Amino acid sequence: MTTTFDRQSFRAALGTFTTGVTIVTTRAGDGSAVGITANSFNSVSLEPPLVLWSLAKNARSLAAFESAGQWNVHVLSAQQEALSGRFARQGEDKFAGIELDEGVGSAPLLRDCTARFQCRTASSYDGGDHVIFVGEVLAYDRSEHPPLVFQGGQYALAARKPRDEIRLGAAPSPDCCYTEDLLGYLLGRAHYQMLHRLRRLLDTDALDERTFFILSVLSIRDRLTLAQIDGFIAYTGMRASEAAIGALVARGLVAPELADGQVRYLLTAEGRAASLRHIALAKAVEAEMTDKLGAGDAMALKLLLKRLVASSDPGAPDLWAAN
Amino acid sequence: MTTTFDRQSFRAALGTFTTGVTIVTTRAGDGSAVGITANSFNSVSLEPPLVLWSLAKNARSLAAFESAGQWNVHVLSAQQEALSGRFARQGEDKFAGIELDEGVGSAPLLRDCTARFQCRTASSYDGGDHVIFVGEVLAYDRSEHPPLVFQGGQYALAARKPRDEIRLGAAPSPDCCYTEDLLGYLLGRAHYQMLHRLRRLLDTDALDERTFFILSVLSIRDRLTLAQIDGFIAYTGMRASEAAIGALVARGLVAPELADGQVRYLLTAEGRAASLRHIALAKAVEAEMTDKLGAGDAMALKLLLKRLVASSDPGAPDLWAAN
Repeated sequence: MTTTFDRQSFRAALGTFTTGVTIVTTRAGDGSAVGITANSFNSVSLEPPLVLWSLAKNARSLAAFESAGQWNVHVLSAQQEALSGRFARQGEDKFAGIELDEGVGSAPLLRDCTARFQCRTASSYDGGDHVIFVGEVLAYDRSEHPPLVFQGGQYALAARKPRDEIRLGAAPSPDCCYTEDLLGYLLGRAHYQMLHRLRRLLDTDALDERTFFILSVLSIRDRLTLAQIDGFIAYTGMRASEAAIGALVARGLVAPELADGQVRYLLTAEGRAASLRHIALAKAVEAEMTDKLGAGDAMALKLLLKRLVASSDPGAPDLWAAN
Repeated sequence: MTTTFDRQSFRAALGTFTTGVTIVTTRAGDGSAVGITANSFNSVSLEPPLVLWSLAKNARSLAAFESAGQWNVHVLSAQQEALSGRFARQGEDKFAGIELDEGVGSAPLLRDCTARFQCRTASSYDGGDHVIFVGEVLAYDRSEHPPLVFQGGQYALAARKPRDEIRLGAAPSPDCCYTEDLLGYLLGRAHYQMLHRLRRLLDTDALDERTFFILSVLSIRDRLTLAQIDGFIAYTGMRASEAAIGALVARGLVAPELADGQVRYLLTAEGRAASLRHIALAKAVEAEMTDKLGAGDAMALKLLLKRLVASSDPGAPDLWAAN
C-alpha cells in the first residue's frame, strides 16, 4: 500500500529543505542540445566520485538522458536566475544565443556557473515517478561566483554564518532592555560606521551630513527647487533649509538659477567634483566591505536592505524617476 | 577506470551546491537510538512519496540503518545549529537530554525542526563509498521555524528573493554615479526609515537624535562621565556636549551626581520611563519589519549587519562590558 498525501502540502514540506539550483544538460540522439533545471542534485561518493539527481519519468528529456550516458551538471550562480527559469520552462529553444564551452563529452557545457560536473551515467535507479541518475564525475571546475539558492519555492541568496558567534559587545545583562541584537541598533551602528570615513572627507570639505545629502540629490537630478530638494532628503529627518543651501552657494558648490519666476539649484563644476569624490569614497568603502563579507553575502545584505527599505517606505518621492 | 580527484578540491566544488541540514535517526537492533547529521537529503518522487539520502559505507550507524528499515529525516531549523554539530560528531551520547515525540515507527523523532519525514526504506542502492537510502514517506509535518542552510562548508541562513525585482526607484541613467544599489545609500535609507516613527515619538518628548543616543547609553550603563558618554556615542558622529547633557538635566530626564570630584550622570525615573517608551517602539517597529520580511530573512539581515558592524568597527568601546 502506498501513502498518498496532499501534493501541495507535501511539496511545501519538502521545499523547506534548501537546495542550490542546477541545470543538467545532455545531447539527444539527433545531436540536439537538451537541458533541464533541477534542484534534486546531490553528492554521493568521493571515491569513486559520484553525484546524483533525479528526473521525472514523464519529462520530455528522459529518453535523451537515458540514451546519452553522458551529462553535465551546472551549479548556477546568483546571476543565473533567468537561465534557471528558462531551462525550467518547456517549448522554447533553451540554448538559443547561449555560448558553450568544450567539455570532455558532447553534452553542452554552459558558462559562468558556480561549479560544473561532467559525468557519465554510472547507474540509474527507480525512484517512483522519477528516475535517479547516478553519475561518475569525469571532470569538474568551479568559479568564485556566489551560488543561487532555492528555498520554499523561492530563489534566495545565502547569508553565511561564521564559525564563531559574532559578539559586538559583552552579553547585555538580562534586565537591560537595549541589546546589540535590536535591528534598529544594528542598522544605525552599521550606517554610522560606514559613514565614518566619508565623514572625515566631508570634514575636509567643511560639509556636514545635511549638505552632503543636498549635494548628492543635485548630482542625480539637476535644477531642483528648495522644496523639491527638501522632499528628496526628508527621509533622513534633515531639512533642506535656506541656510543650508545658502552655505553651499556661498562655498561655490551650488548655483541658483532663476527661471519662470522660480529659483532652482544646480551643481557647479566644483560641486560636481566634490560629489564625485564622495561617490568614489563610498564605492571604495563598499568594495572593502564586500571583500570582508564575501561577494555573495554582500549581495544578500543589499537584497535584504532593499526589501526593508521597500517595506518601511513612508512614501519617499522617486529620486531616479524621469524628469 | 575510475577518476581520482584531489579530495579537498572536489569536496569544495561539491560544497558550492547549497543544501539544508538534516538529522536522520533510527533505532538499532538493541533498541538504542541512532542518529547522524546529513546534507545529502533530497526529494525524489511525489507519487509514491519518496525521499533519499546517502550514508558512508564506513559509518558506524550503517548496520542500524540497513536493518531497521524505518528512519526519520529532520530538516533542521536555524536554531538547531548546535544539534547539527552534536549529531555530526562521534562518540558522545547524542540523544542525552533530548525530548522525543512519538512517531509512526520506533525511530527517534526530534522536536522543534523545520520539517520531519518519517520513512520506511523503499530501496537502498549502491553509491560508491556510500549507500543511497530511498525511503517512502509514511508521515510528515512541518513548522514555521526558518531552516538552517549549509553552503561552502559553512552554516548559513537564506535571504529569500521576491519573485519580482525590488525597484526602489526608476533605473538611474547610466551616467549617474549614485545608484540605489550602493550599500551606503541602502544602509542610510533603511536606517533613516526605521528611525522615522521613533523620530515622531522623540518630537513629542522634545528630544533630538543626539539626546536620544545619550539617554540610550545611560539606560544601559549608569553613572558615566560626560567623556565616557561621548566615547559611547562617538560612532554616530554626534558628540555628547555640555549643552546636550544640560538640556537633558533641565528636562528632568538625567541627573548629575558628584563623586570623587567627578560629575557622573544617571537617568531619573522620568528619564528611564522615556527610555522604556523608545525601546518599546523600537521593538514594535522591529516586530513589524520581521513580519514583513519573514522570520528567517530578518535573522539573515541581522546576521549580516552584525558582520558588517564587526568588519567596519573603528574601535568603539564596548557599551555592554562589565563596569
